Amino acid sequence: MPSLKSREWTLASRPVGMPKLSDFQHQDTEAPEPSKGEIQVQNSWMSVDPYMRGRMYDRESYVPPFQIGEVLQGHAVGTVTASHHPDYSKGDLVTSMAGWREAWTADPSSVMANKMPKTNLPDSALLGVAGMPGLTAYAGILRVADLQEGDTVFVSGAAGAVGSTVVQIAKIKNCTVIGSAGGEEKCKLVKKLGADHVIDYKQHDSYEALLGALKGAAPKGIDVYFDNVGGDHLQAAIEAARPMARFAICGMISQYNATEPQPGPYNIIQVVGKQLTLRGFIVGTHVDMQPQFLQDMAKWIESGQMKFEETVMEGIENAPEAFLGLFQGRNTGKMLVKLG
Amino acid sequence: MPSLKSREWTLASRPVGMPKLSDFQHQDTEAPEPSKGEIQVQNSWMSVDPYMRGRMYDRESYVPPFQIGEVLQGHAVGTVTASHHPDYSKGDLVTSMAGWREAWTADPSSVMANKMPKTNLPDSALLGVAGMPGLTAYAGILRVADLQEGDTVFVSGAAGAVGSTVVQIAKIKNCTVIGSAGGEEKCKLVKKLGADHVIDYKQHDSYEALLGALKGAAPKGIDVYFDNVGGDHLQAAIEAARPMARFAICGMISQYNATEPQPGPYNIIQVVGKQLTLRGFIVGTHVDMQPQFLQDMAKWIESGQMKFEETVMEGIENAPEAFLGLFQGRNTGKMLVKLG
Repeated sequence: MPSLKSREWTLASRPVGMPKLSDFQHQDTEAPEPSKGEIQVQNSWMSVDPYMRGRMYDRESYVPPFQIGEVLQGHAVGTVTASHHPDYSKGDLVTSMAGWREAWTADPSSVMANKMPKTNLPDSALLGVAGMPGLTAYAGILRVADLQEGDTVFVSGAAGAVGSTVVQIAKIKNCTVIGSAGGEEKCKLVKKLGADHVIDYKQHDSYEALLGALKGAAPKGIDVYFDNVGGDHLQAAIEAARPMARFAICGMISQYNATEPQPGPYNIIQVVGKQLTLRGFIVGTHVDMQPQFLQDMAKWIESGQMKFEETVMEGIENAPEAFLGLFQGRNTGKMLVKLG
Repeated sequence: MPSLKSREWTLASRPVGMPKLSDFQHQDTEAPEPSKGEIQVQNSWMSVDPYMRGRMYDRESYVPPFQIGEVLQGHAVGTVTASHHPDYSKGDLVTSMAGWREAWTADPSSVMANKMPKTNLPDSALLGVAGMPGLTAYAGILRVADLQEGDTVFVSGAAGAVGSTVVQIAKIKNCTVIGSAGGEEKCKLVKKLGADHVIDYKQHDSYEALLGALKGAAPKGIDVYFDNVGGDHLQAAIEAARPMARFAICGMISQYNATEPQPGPYNIIQVVGKQLTLRGFIVGTHVDMQPQFLQDMAKWIESGQMKFEETVMEGIENAPEAFLGLFQGRNTGKMLVKLG
């Protein structure tokens, strides 16, 4: 079995503020024939995700930082082209953390590879609605926010990979859902996914306007807030929260590229009187939910209750562009790069 | 049975910023002979508490606001002097919300009166360590913060009525405790109560200095933060928090008298990566714990594991002064007014 040609991306420099194309460097390499215990994989899709921005800082975090000059990592799906590992055969579909490259050869455990069961799902779904972003939505809204039937739920970033799944799970659970997204096209999508109310935050570009729109959509207040955005959205959610409301804090994309610390919500004192629970979470803590998640997701997709959108860029050469696009609001649903 | 002479305090005006003596108005009144279903009570102690500041704003909250010209309310303990109610007899000890007055006559349920069992505790303890502040500490640290043996616990306002009880409960549960308080005398008390480390925040009067002191005391970080203070303390606790740390948010006394909204913690984004839980609470939600609380507290006080301090002002005429003293850091332990 020959080696496979591969192109890959390394981190050229740590971004300051918004990342630039020049922070990335590509190089040609190859994925050699597998040694004992290794597999060789041709990636077909790779994922770009907002959390990757955090790994570009040199700081302690829940995942180690990317290193300058080393190949970047991220979720990818591909097909085994050669195996010297007893659990894998040629033709197996695998997800792994060996993204940002076209092909790779490694011990599967070293890149967190997982052999995927045969399903009717398109491969790309394993990076989105049935993958890490889907599980993030599922664990966040059902466990972290402890969703109850009939809750009034506010979701920011509602057109994104995670947010759009949260909207639909909350509707499946008979909740009233308010989604916020930026721009007419995204808002149309959120409405199509079943949200009862949609707030275009680009049309409500002050805190007061955003809060007014939220209170208009939820005159009795909200029971749950799923936060992908932080900033004004978080503050408005605290202001509109009903007593005992639960917040699942998944991300704060409004702050990822800030070069100076941003003030937290000015109304955080309301956490006491309203007895709010604000809980941050990372999907990795909730992988025990994966079997139930895959079962529910397959059922919901088949029944048409769960829809998903993808924004696809073609070719490994466009991976940095796709990543930057996340911060420019260029994706609707999951942002993906199609390889090969 | 004659009526009892009583002096009482009303709210003269809603304070702006720090309350002033002129925001209070006293008047002479009397507690008449009880009608059917009523009791007449001579108060012996009344409590002043930081939460009362919140009731002086005209806004929706978990307790209705005080009204201008009406007598103020708060916890008090007293003795039944006459009863026209089947469950109460002359000489019974009762707690109630009919504070800020020397005597009263009312239907017991209208002032949330509770007949107290005979104990060896001094009456004043029923307003402190064995009363509402004690239960606040107990429910907050054990249930809301889900305290585990061996946790590293940070408590702000550690010399106050609630904080000093939190420190001792955490020590009883074999935790490492860091207490913060303002001034040498209070810090000595916190140390005497068993705290492993004490931070005098008046000696660390910038955020950076406070954080440095906290990190020095807890080089591996904190598992639990019990917040009575908010502001820089909350931000430092987030910075020093270990993954999965739990915050019980009981109050934010640093912000109660602010006339402009104060920014929330600049590092709130760490809630995501560290998977922190910030949970606000009010003691009223946790009254189901009261039987176990009283049992534990009596045991701990008897064994000497639970100590308590009181700061006492004499006479109903000094009640507003006592209340203002809370915001000037004049109390060590529970602030009380001795009546009659």
